[in-house]
Amino acid sequence: MLLNETIVALATPPGSGAIAVIRVSGPKAIDFVAPVFEGRKKIDLRNQETHSLQLGYIKDGERIIDESLVSVFKGKQSYTGEPTVEISCHGSPFIQQEIISLMLKQGCRAAKPGEFTMRAFLNGKMDLSQAEAVADLIASDNEAAHQMAMNQMRGGFADEIQNLREELLNFASLIELELDFSEEDVEFADREEFRSLIFKIQKTLNRLIDSFAVGNVLKKGIPVAIVGEPNAGKSTLLNALLNEERAIVSNIAGTTRDTIEDEIAIGGIGFRFIDTAGIRETTDEIEGLGIQKTFEKIQKASIALLMIPSAKLKEEKDVRETIVEINRLKNRFPDKPFLIVVNKIDLLAPQKIAELKTRLGEIAGTDLQFISAKKKIGIEELKEKLQQYVNTGILRNNDTIITNSRHYDSLLKAQAEINQVQNGIDLGLSGDLLAIDIRQALYYFGEITGEITTDDLLGNIFSNFCIGK
Amino acid sequence: MLLNETIVALATPPGSGAIAVIRVSGPKAIDFVAPVFEGRKKIDLRNQETHSLQLGYIKDGERIIDESLVSVFKGKQSYTGEPTVEISCHGSPFIQQEIISLMLKQGCRAAKPGEFTMRAFLNGKMDLSQAEAVADLIASDNEAAHQMAMNQMRGGFADEIQNLREELLNFASLIELELDFSEEDVEFADREEFRSLIFKIQKTLNRLIDSFAVGNVLKKGIPVAIVGEPNAGKSTLLNALLNEERAIVSNIAGTTRDTIEDEIAIGGIGFRFIDTAGIRETTDEIEGLGIQKTFEKIQKASIALLMIPSAKLKEEKDVRETIVEINRLKNRFPDKPFLIVVNKIDLLAPQKIAELKTRLGEIAGTDLQFISAKKKIGIEELKEKLQQYVNTGILRNNDTIITNSRHYDSLLKAQAEINQVQNGIDLGLSGDLLAIDIRQALYYFGEITGEITTDDLLGNIFSNFCIGK
Repeated sequence: MLLNETIVALATPPGSGAIAVIRVSGPKAIDFVAPVFEGRKKIDLRNQETHSLQLGYIKDGERIIDESLVSVFKGKQSYTGEPTVEISCHGSPFIQQEIISLMLKQGCRAAKPGEFTMRAFLNGKMDLSQAEAVADLIASDNEAAHQMAMNQMRGGFADEIQNLREELLNFASLIELELDFSEEDVEFADREEFRSLIFKIQKTLNRLIDSFAVGNVLKKGIPVAIVGEPNAGKSTLLNALLNEERAIVSNIAGTTRDTIEDEIAIGGIGFRFIDTAGIRETTDEIEGLGIQKTFEKIQKASIALLMIPSAKLKEEKDVRETIVEINRLKNRFPDKPFLIVVNKIDLLAPQKIAELKTRLGEIAGTDLQFISAKKKIGIEELKEKLQQYVNTGILRNNDTIITNSRHYDSLLKAQAEINQVQNGIDLGLSGDLLAIDIRQALYYFGEITGEITTDDLLGNIFSNFCIGK
Repeated sequence: MLLNETIVALATPPGSGAIAVIRVSGPKAIDFVAPVFEGRKKIDLRNQETHSLQLGYIKDGERIIDESLVSVFKGKQSYTGEPTVEISCHGSPFIQQEIISLMLKQGCRAAKPGEFTMRAFLNGKMDLSQAEAVADLIASDNEAAHQMAMNQMRGGFADEIQNLREELLNFASLIELELDFSEEDVEFADREEFRSLIFKIQKTLNRLIDSFAVGNVLKKGIPVAIVGEPNAGKSTLLNALLNEERAIVSNIAGTTRDTIEDEIAIGGIGFRFIDTAGIRETTDEIEGLGIQKTFEKIQKASIALLMIPSAKLKEEKDVRETIVEINRLKNRFPDKPFLIVVNKIDLLAPQKIAELKTRLGEIAGTDLQFISAKKKIGIEELKEKLQQYVNTGILRNNDTIITNSRHYDSLLKAQAEINQVQNGIDLGLSGDLLAIDIRQALYYFGEITGEITTDDLLGNIFSNFCIGK
């Protein structure tokens, strides 16, 4: 992957649309496009100002391929940090293909996945964690995931790591300086100051590492298990939640959103209803709440939503049985939040509802919601309840949140090294031994921001990008 | 559909990609985007030059939706002929949706299909036939269809109609002037000159109307019927033709082309292999060449490709039978070109091939090709033969070609009126009677270029566009 090559790719989603954008980046980007571009105004693309737009024809010899709008970015003032041309053409797959073919003929190479963003990283336009955030940003399909990716892309996370790294680097240098004067038994690095720095780093690392649990779950969507008998109305509830979402989406003409079946954004948070395939095949879970499959489902989820059809609560005997069953589940998963949802309340008398609310409230507390999925009663309240299980405070605080498992991994390793350093200080280890662990911790910090990279690492990261990004 | 409204839509294909473009057009386009755009450089979007690009954040209050590149087009210097902003954002469906929602909140209206192009027409940036060509251009999936749409978009066709219309209009005025002086029996419009103008118009109309047969077929793809016994290797041939095409396409990384199954571009011309569904279910056509279904298929096609497996030509008896069958089909469809394709020639001795070439050549002439679909022998030659059936001269001549059935319809009506006018002159009809038919012909010309339109007509045309165009 040489930076002296000029690369080309389709940057917009594949398929047919009003317009498509083909991106050309590299030292010869403008030189390659200029000869095949005939502007409305007789201009030479090479003489245009950066960030300017020109309308004209893209021509292969005398043959006109398209009338296109061409953007020119000069010097380092582009996304990639190298000369870039964006050709905004008519959005037919045929034209897209013809223009890309033409650019290949002009000397471009077809870009590999993520190669534009990798160049942005290699050219110093962003650090590695910011580059990774670009892919997250494109993949994000709810407000929370989007906001976390945006924060990371804006460098919040990297800045924090960078600051710690610099302070640590400073100390490492002082300690290494001591080694040069080891005969003289001097201490350039004040051990108390050093200890408090290590403490600060540990605190930050702990916070960042802890944030991963929330961050990762928010990024992927909070896993929710809907548990209940076949006739509990699970499928109807899912549809009630999904349809509303879809209605909102389809209101905005022109945007087709690839809804992940059973992933629903509520208040900007993605909720992923796990293992719902079985819900639709109502023959599943015939054994009620007791079976192994249900346990596994609850195990995997962050929240268990227990659906009870009102018919199951008509007789006193049924109510008692249900209460026993709820308690049994709660005891089996003591750390799991259970949201008890009574469905089909349109079939119950108001007095009965009031009575059940009191009785079930005794074991469920506020984790109780009465609904009619079919009649859309209590759905909004249910949504609000679901949101309350998610610690969104962490989002609102503008705190840094780790969402990337690679970062998480590096942070864990850095943490282990920093703990080693702390032990070393406690044991009064010599500077040369401390320095080894410090250097190792610095290495892991550098892995996150990309100051330390290998081709393998880069290859791994960017191969997950789409082409054209 | 009021022009004083500002409209918004996604202009790039729906789905996920590196970037997406959201188009905002209308009198308030820049005013609506400016308050939600925070440029990297502290600028006011309203003060930027036309055709300039700005990098910055799209913000909903304090919340950052995306880092986007914003293009500004001022005055009439845009596609639509009205102020336009194009927001090039990160290509996640979530971001696309958020930005469109934000623009709706700012006062935009969601654009209807084709509304941007309709505005371009209404604002005088293009005539109606050019606007229609935009949709054809986006839909075109082969060189020929693309070139015809491009020619039409560049106004070739409209110019020709426009010139005829003006000459005719000129005569109409002179004839109508005569009516004012009808008492005096003057002739402002020289009847001989008029007759030669009518003759010229008739010639042009005939040429344009004749071009529709070719144009329409080229636009939609030349229909080819592959006819033959189940074991003739029809499916293998189709795959051999298709796979090569697909290989070319997939070589260009990043372009996913929605290949219409069984449509193949050969030498820039689309060939549509009709009713091929049955080819794959080999139980179809068990009756060989004789059945009704095959006749219907040939009837619908421009070219009939008769496939004969070499096994059918081993015995002298078989060869005679085949020749009889070919002759029978050719007699039944005397105007249809038949291309005789002998398949599986890898199973024949060279001497046998030479002998068969001579014997079949006697009835097929050059419409004969020996291939092995499996071994890819003779496929290139077959492609060349197919191309020879298509009158591409009409394309190379840069002549105007009609591809749009609406235009074809208007031209037929105009032709009928012009013929009426000619009759009128021959019969020495008075000017007032001639004027009626001339006006009617002018009306039909005007329908094509859009000088005469109705809301219904516009609605019809643009509803076939995609949203965002």
